[in-house]
Amino acid sequence: MSQVSETIHFDERGLITAVVQDADSHQVLMVGWMNAESLRLTQERGEAVFWSRSREELWHKGATSGNVMQVVEIRVDCDADTLLVRVKPAGPACHTGATSCFFRRIEELTAEV
Amino acid sequence: MSQVSETIHFDERGLITAVVQDADSHQVLMVGWMNAESLRLTQERGEAVFWSRSREELWHKGATSGNVMQVVEIRVDCDADTLLVRVKPAGPACHTGATSCFFRRIEELTAEV
Repeated sequence: MSQVSETIHFDERGLITAVVQDADSHQVLMVGWMNAESLRLTQERGEAVFWSRSREELWHKGATSGNVMQVVEIRVDCDADTLLVRVKPAGPACHTGATSCFFRRIEELTAEV
Repeated sequence: MSQVSETIHFDERGLITAVVQDADSHQVLMVGWMNAESLRLTQERGEAVFWSRSREELWHKGATSGNVMQVVEIRVDCDADTLLVRVKPAGPACHTGATSCFFRRIEELTAEV
């Protein structure tokens, strides 16, 4: 029961979930996906680089908006199938301009859950 | 660019990623998965219920260990394809006994990343 994985597990698409947390405020900012290359680039550059599933391309967060995310540390869970990327963001994480993508409680959705 | 989704999006497997955060310490504890039924049960009971992908069954976290997670609020991201479940945990989140499943930095993995 106390076993942990020592190898990063990418899923069948070659992706791993990356939870992004503000290293100072501890707010959860967003959840993105990384493939091996985006993880390597994130480590090399010290700025978060994701894999965009919709555009199917590397996505250097903030490359156009300026809202880059400076990486403080990357943590990995016991199964090594999820990353926790702790960052210092240069601006809002969300495309809406909100600090965090999680700006709504589930009750605030107007459609039936 | 400022559009947000008003409907919860479950993926092609009927699942949604659920990031679990301690509502008091703000520590990210674990990442689990929910299907529509586990989300409904979580809301009904006020305790986190996940979908276990490995066992393919509902997983009431803490039902056997006693380490239940009392739900304070459920937030949803702009795309409504990820949940942020803020909880008061009765004990460690991780099967290893660690408070959080993210107890390692990526550099601590012994295998090549």
